[in-house]
Amino acid sequence: MGRPAELRPQREEGREAGGHQQHGQRPAGREARGAGRTGRGRGGSHALVPARDNERLLTHETEVKGAFDRIEPFLRRLSAMQHEAGFVDRAQGMARSELGFELPQKVLDNAWIQQLDIRYLYAWCVFETYRAYADDFYRREPLAPDPAEKDRFQAWLQECGFHAVDISPCSDGRLAHVIRYVLRLPHGLVRRKSFAGAMFDVEASLKRWVETELNRYREGVPSTADAPTRYLKLAVYHFSSGEPATQGCAAHGSDTAVAAAAARDRLQDFQEAIENSFCCGASIDLLMVGLDTDTDAILVHPPDTKGDPDPERFVESEALFDRTQGLDAEAARERINEAVAAVASDSESGMRRFIAGLLENNFAQLAYVRAHHGGRYGDIGHNERFMGVGMGFEEVQLRNLTYFAYLQTVEEGAPDLDVGVKIFSGLNVSRGLPVPVVLRFDYHGQVPGARERAEARTRRVAEALRNRFPQLAEQGLLHNLMAVRDCGNNGTLEVIGSSLEPTGTGETH
Amino acid sequence: MGRPAELRPQREEGREAGGHQQHGQRPAGREARGAGRTGRGRGGSHALVPARDNERLLTHETEVKGAFDRIEPFLRRLSAMQHEAGFVDRAQGMARSELGFELPQKVLDNAWIQQLDIRYLYAWCVFETYRAYADDFYRREPLAPDPAEKDRFQAWLQECGFHAVDISPCSDGRLAHVIRYVLRLPHGLVRRKSFAGAMFDVEASLKRWVETELNRYREGVPSTADAPTRYLKLAVYHFSSGEPATQGCAAHGSDTAVAAAAARDRLQDFQEAIENSFCCGASIDLLMVGLDTDTDAILVHPPDTKGDPDPERFVESEALFDRTQGLDAEAARERINEAVAAVASDSESGMRRFIAGLLENNFAQLAYVRAHHGGRYGDIGHNERFMGVGMGFEEVQLRNLTYFAYLQTVEEGAPDLDVGVKIFSGLNVSRGLPVPVVLRFDYHGQVPGARERAEARTRRVAEALRNRFPQLAEQGLLHNLMAVRDCGNNGTLEVIGSSLEPTGTGETH
Repeated sequence: MGRPAELRPQREEGREAGGHQQHGQRPAGREARGAGRTGRGRGGSHALVPARDNERLLTHETEVKGAFDRIEPFLRRLSAMQHEAGFVDRAQGMARSELGFELPQKVLDNAWIQQLDIRYLYAWCVFETYRAYADDFYRREPLAPDPAEKDRFQAWLQECGFHAVDISPCSDGRLAHVIRYVLRLPHGLVRRKSFAGAMFDVEASLKRWVETELNRYREGVPSTADAPTRYLKLAVYHFSSGEPATQGCAAHGSDTAVAAAAARDRLQDFQEAIENSFCCGASIDLLMVGLDTDTDAILVHPPDTKGDPDPERFVESEALFDRTQGLDAEAARERINEAVAAVASDSESGMRRFIAGLLENNFAQLAYVRAHHGGRYGDIGHNERFMGVGMGFEEVQLRNLTYFAYLQTVEEGAPDLDVGVKIFSGLNVSRGLPVPVVLRFDYHGQVPGARERAEARTRRVAEALRNRFPQLAEQGLLHNLMAVRDCGNNGTLEVIGSSLEPTGTGETH
Repeated sequence: MGRPAELRPQREEGREAGGHQQHGQRPAGREARGAGRTGRGRGGSHALVPARDNERLLTHETEVKGAFDRIEPFLRRLSAMQHEAGFVDRAQGMARSELGFELPQKVLDNAWIQQLDIRYLYAWCVFETYRAYADDFYRREPLAPDPAEKDRFQAWLQECGFHAVDISPCSDGRLAHVIRYVLRLPHGLVRRKSFAGAMFDVEASLKRWVETELNRYREGVPSTADAPTRYLKLAVYHFSSGEPATQGCAAHGSDTAVAAAAARDRLQDFQEAIENSFCCGASIDLLMVGLDTDTDAILVHPPDTKGDPDPERFVESEALFDRTQGLDAEAARERINEAVAAVASDSESGMRRFIAGLLENNFAQLAYVRAHHGGRYGDIGHNERFMGVGMGFEEVQLRNLTYFAYLQTVEEGAPDLDVGVKIFSGLNVSRGLPVPVVLRFDYHGQVPGARERAEARTRRVAEALRNRFPQLAEQGLLHNLMAVRDCGNNGTLEVIGSSLEPTGTGETH
């Protein structure tokens, strides 16, 4: 199958254009930008910003995104040399040394007949890069806190009055780093499940809560049931300060007020569900955070006297960050506490402490974005590298790497999938490149048959995905990698197949 | 849309043929059989058989099945008179007096143009009959135990060492009465969820267990967490003693040994899942029951020393029933206990007591089948009146009334749906009548938004069902009624739509 050659020049032009890209188009020159902006920030040093953590996060972001972003320029060079003598051997050598893996031999071998199948190679490279990244994440744990930090976090959380934090951000790829980067929370200790518009599933959240509470009663983990701690549910909505009308939350029509009100309503629904389903004073605490996806600054909305987050009341991290520049740590923390107290006078003291902690944590991210992204991301719009469909993806803690569609079936998850495919139609399909989908279901290995059921589910969803987007699949413009993972034993990824098998020619797209 | 008139004579011939029907064909003259056999049984009286309960169950079975079985003869008479003068008024009068509801006026009005749309009327009548039956079930509670009996059951259960009983029978319609009839357990106090081949969902069962245990810890319901009681999971497989090779469990190729082994394996998987997922000695007790769907006799397989049900070891209810005829209650119970002790010497005493209770309960059903069905059902094969798809259906406690497909999505539930449609292809479609599907999702009204989500799910599944069987739907051979129900408040059924709307002509089938 040939790709229209005339698409490629347009694509290259697109990449030369500077400035903020439109929604749904790849930003230009993103490969070089990270490096170019390093050190150019106006953040300077701040007493509450841990420089070492920022370096570590930068290394991770640079390495992972760098690996994904090497793919297109590499394939462009490959395309240019496909009719040269000794192409196949040179291509494999280049792939090994530049990308770290080999290309499918058959596709290279067949290039002289049909033209190099760039769609196939693109999907192949994205999947191999993803696989290496995920393997590395679970084997080397590049973002894991050290054990002391882990204990400190748990202790702090309990001092704030909580035994568990369950976070539901929007599934937008620009929030995928919200746990480990924006809020600087340990990703292994805090739950995340993303939904379009932060519209999390109340029944699924209820199930999580029940499991958490039973563990407290039966096993005293993370705290015993008689400890006066609570379960905290946090929803994260988002907006764009630079282009509010077009780069906000698509699920809420880029209307920040609507996004915030919807998050608050869903939080209240969840709280009410627990209160009505269980007696004896069962309840949870609620917190709402707004994220400016241009800058990673946050607004924290403390609960009011009734415990409800108020869209109108919030503490802003960025103003506070600027006001506390140059102060020593103690003085800066004092300012944060004052700002929180001014807005959250009716919240419990533990909740105020938690909010102050989030704001302080976010300072590190503000410094990070200023130092390494000029204070405002180059890609303020969508720029995800692949779609993540299924359950799991703990390894994805990077901004604009992944559009999430958390689902058990295509039948239920179709709306989120449609949004994702629309985003990638703008990013990839419009230029002739496929939508790369990583299909993935985590399972608990200690449950008999769970691995087999996860594998069956992955294959069933792959089939349903093809049925939902038959034209894209037919044209080789939708490819999937299928994987499962034993999350009970913190295992690595197990790839069980892909749409690129069994043949390397374009014929079976 | 016209229906081929030549189908009808064949259909009528089919109904005249006597004897046991083949798998997938309606048995002949079922309407008259129940009544004809009443009193003809060889069961006589048995000291352990409560005559009053049997009368009550007979009344319910006769009324409900009678209502469904009046539909076909009624429509046949209607068809014969459709071209007579004054047809529409006479038809409505007959419907009111014989069926208890009116027919859709438009269909009657249009009969002179196209012929009476029998497919449409058949689905209409099945749905109206179902609606009246379900309403009556929740309003009048014809099968509910009296409050004293309810307390007695809970006390007995705890004396046996259990705080909850969770039963998974096969989804075959010939097991739909297993709780209230075959095992004589209170349907409101015992959980049932049916799956083809009794292959229940381990993860969903795990969720149920977690909820039950949390309620014990938090609320002391049904027993406090420190009471030494256990959670009992019971699987029911089935077979046909009369035609074992063809009328057994379709999911296991009518192979009884395979069906029993599969049920045992699934039970062990569930137990292991709990033991591995929770520490501190978390576990459950297992029990397996085999049901002869010809006679409603049971085999109870007690767990061995390791707690595993053994397909090779069982106590048979029918032999015991016959051996205890004529004895007084005390002596009969003594015989049951001896029979259980002989096979279940290594079971705990509470488990032995529970097994003895099941066997005694089943005596009542053996007497019932002998008295009212000649000891062996006339319809030993499939003879379901409608498919029940979704979650709920507590009202269905009658044999061969409903083929169940418990599911959340068609994507996951497709295998069970396909089996159901195959069964109804034999029962109905082969004669030109549609497959009537009741789509139904129960919800917990105390959870905000739960009703709306149940309604959305019902409509989504209806759409997916049409997409899975487009030809049947197009030809008016697949119709659905959509309903939801607030199970938290023990509400009645709420019908939210059907495939018969919005028009009464055949055109929009």
